[in-house]
Amino acid sequence: MRYQRPKGTADILPGESEKWQYIEETARMIFSDYRYQEIRTPMFENFDVFSRTSGETSDIVTKEMYDFYDKGDRHVTLRPEGTAGVVRSFVENKLYGPDTQKPVKVFYMGPMFRYERPQSGRLREFHQIGVEAFGSEAPELDVEVIAMAMDLLQHYGINDLRLAINTLGDKETRANYRKALIDYLTPHFDSLSEDSQERLNKNPLRVLDSKDPSDQPFVDNAPSILDYLSDNAKQHFNKVTTLLDELGIKYSIDHTMVRGLDYYNHTIFEVMANSKALGEGYTTICAGGRYDGLVKELGGPEMPGVGFGLGVERLLLLMESEKVEFPAFNPLDAYVVGIGDKANLETLKIVQSLRMNGFAADRDYLSRKPKAQFKSANKLNANFTLTIGDQEIEDGTVHVKHMETGKEVTFKLEDVKNNFGKLIEENFE
Amino acid sequence: MRYQRPKGTADILPGESEKWQYIEETARMIFSDYRYQEIRTPMFENFDVFSRTSGETSDIVTKEMYDFYDKGDRHVTLRPEGTAGVVRSFVENKLYGPDTQKPVKVFYMGPMFRYERPQSGRLREFHQIGVEAFGSEAPELDVEVIAMAMDLLQHYGINDLRLAINTLGDKETRANYRKALIDYLTPHFDSLSEDSQERLNKNPLRVLDSKDPSDQPFVDNAPSILDYLSDNAKQHFNKVTTLLDELGIKYSIDHTMVRGLDYYNHTIFEVMANSKALGEGYTTICAGGRYDGLVKELGGPEMPGVGFGLGVERLLLLMESEKVEFPAFNPLDAYVVGIGDKANLETLKIVQSLRMNGFAADRDYLSRKPKAQFKSANKLNANFTLTIGDQEIEDGTVHVKHMETGKEVTFKLEDVKNNFGKLIEENFE
Repeated sequence: MRYQRPKGTADILPGESEKWQYIEETARMIFSDYRYQEIRTPMFENFDVFSRTSGETSDIVTKEMYDFYDKGDRHVTLRPEGTAGVVRSFVENKLYGPDTQKPVKVFYMGPMFRYERPQSGRLREFHQIGVEAFGSEAPELDVEVIAMAMDLLQHYGINDLRLAINTLGDKETRANYRKALIDYLTPHFDSLSEDSQERLNKNPLRVLDSKDPSDQPFVDNAPSILDYLSDNAKQHFNKVTTLLDELGIKYSIDHTMVRGLDYYNHTIFEVMANSKALGEGYTTICAGGRYDGLVKELGGPEMPGVGFGLGVERLLLLMESEKVEFPAFNPLDAYVVGIGDKANLETLKIVQSLRMNGFAADRDYLSRKPKAQFKSANKLNANFTLTIGDQEIEDGTVHVKHMETGKEVTFKLEDVKNNFGKLIEENFE
Repeated sequence: MRYQRPKGTADILPGESEKWQYIEETARMIFSDYRYQEIRTPMFENFDVFSRTSGETSDIVTKEMYDFYDKGDRHVTLRPEGTAGVVRSFVENKLYGPDTQKPVKVFYMGPMFRYERPQSGRLREFHQIGVEAFGSEAPELDVEVIAMAMDLLQHYGINDLRLAINTLGDKETRANYRKALIDYLTPHFDSLSEDSQERLNKNPLRVLDSKDPSDQPFVDNAPSILDYLSDNAKQHFNKVTTLLDELGIKYSIDHTMVRGLDYYNHTIFEVMANSKALGEGYTTICAGGRYDGLVKELGGPEMPGVGFGLGVERLLLLMESEKVEFPAFNPLDAYVVGIGDKANLETLKIVQSLRMNGFAADRDYLSRKPKAQFKSANKLNANFTLTIGDQEIEDGTVHVKHMETGKEVTFKLEDVKNNFGKLIEENFE
């Protein structure tokens, strides 16, 4: 019988996994320049954490959750996104307390799980990298988060980027705008798509998120939230745009942008890339915003937050289509060829010594003839091929060939084991 | 309302997560010297993958699985261990085929899930690092895997280690030994623990694994599997011990060692550390062995395998109790203090320039007075504190203080933004 991975999941194999390592290491490096530290939360959380934060009527909660009851009858779910778990952890571990410097800046990376329809082309186990910063309302922090996202994507070699921003304002703004939207949409009620009709009363902002073509004329001509900003919200947003200008970060304002999750307010943003690998035109690769009520929503104090998330699978598609060069997988420093039965033991000892000294070394484990071993050395792109046979064992020597130049030198066995770095420096460079 | 992480899970917070990063980076480095590449498999697999490989009567399968039915009614389970998923992936992706160099050597790291009783002190979401090598029967490969485990643990700063090895032989050996064990234990049937009575007929080797004190006399005096080895098994094991001797790796042979999982054969081993953090005396920190039938069991060709697994939580406990020094979290190169309203914008620009040039830099996001900002610079252990106020803005300068020596120099603003590395090299070193 054959066993298969679960539908919607992927194996990341050698050759591919090095790209993931590179993406993660780069993110760690950039995040550390901005002083974000890693946080790791469990793969599953209590169901309530997400039903509370994602909105009980959202697709995520109603259709896409990998939720189940554990053997103790607890309703848990594989995490569908990263922010809610981080906020839960932030509150539960009292990171809002006086012992931490504010803002508390964290990042996460890892698998997320959504039971999406297969035709969407999305994986059910997918991966996100994200950041969250808690404890400052300053628009400077919104801008830091945006600048970091741009910096990161540019480090990945993606240069044709567009930044779109919007504001969802504060409570006052949302109340005013909600009323304006309902006033504007209600006369067109019968022309709206069924989904939008349903959303109109529950959450009219979501109508702006509609992908249904029949809704587009109404979305395009909808009143702009920018005309309903409270003084506070206007001031915040103006500061954000001023700072972006000053940092030379180009952006456009998209007043119809609302983001999928209910918990955002003030600044929201999307970074889009232009690549056929992701679809036609510019499509979103990274998105985020401010969520000042979320910490309180999960039982913490009133404490603002801002962050972004980035889909790793989409990023990889993009990097590959942009022909970004990934760094080479750790090269093989030395392949040790043993000739004859006696050499078997000695090759193991040489290989082990080299590895203990920090060199990547390998040998044959299939009792193959020298010819096949040399072939492996070539195929594995070994920097040096070391050869040892009966004569060398008797003499206590090893034959070393630099594969690029073809230069060959015979060294003392002990020197190769203990000082390989010095030997190659003195003889081959 | 307060939300809590699910029972048996842990949050890994800033301050702690850097230790995890160090452990993982070290493993990646060592594995790459031995030419093992990363493989990542899904967090959940079809239930059958584990019921097939772990043994349908094992505790893992009967009591400890986080299994559930997904929205498509598929019986899936969070992975309880790493090997079965890797083997499933190895087979499904045909890594046994002619395109790969043998042995195929992979490593994995990540969360595993077992619904254990809370009193066991074990987490339900825990983490393992492991390796698997497929496609060679050579005892040299068993020894490579063991040597790598020892090398890795020593790199973690753990020196008081003991290696115990045993062999479970081949099929012929197991059949002979099984019979010998039954013959030996049956006369003592009534004195055995209930668990052992049950195991006696199903899987008598498991009786040797009993922790029940009443079973100990029988375990201690049981016949040794070493007396029942087939010629082939004997030859393999002798080669393993010879090679370990030659590499100077000390070990003891424990003929009662059987390992928890059913799929092992030939060489099995445990590496034990002596630390009160893990319990009394020497306790197992890393374990593994050969599993030549497992690839076939999961639908692949007859292809041998050998590997080990390491519990990260236990490793961390051990490293902490051994007072291993973890490398410092990326230090803060520069904290930029802004004095007065005008400086706010300029500090953001300086910080952003420094970060774009690869320095870890930070500033205030709470509109605090200079005094509080200087306090932060101290608390965060900044290497340099940069100060900019009205006068500096007018002059186009920044004041830079080296915190360790107290030396202060005023530089041109543009030079700080573009050439900070050169400036500090020329002026402070």
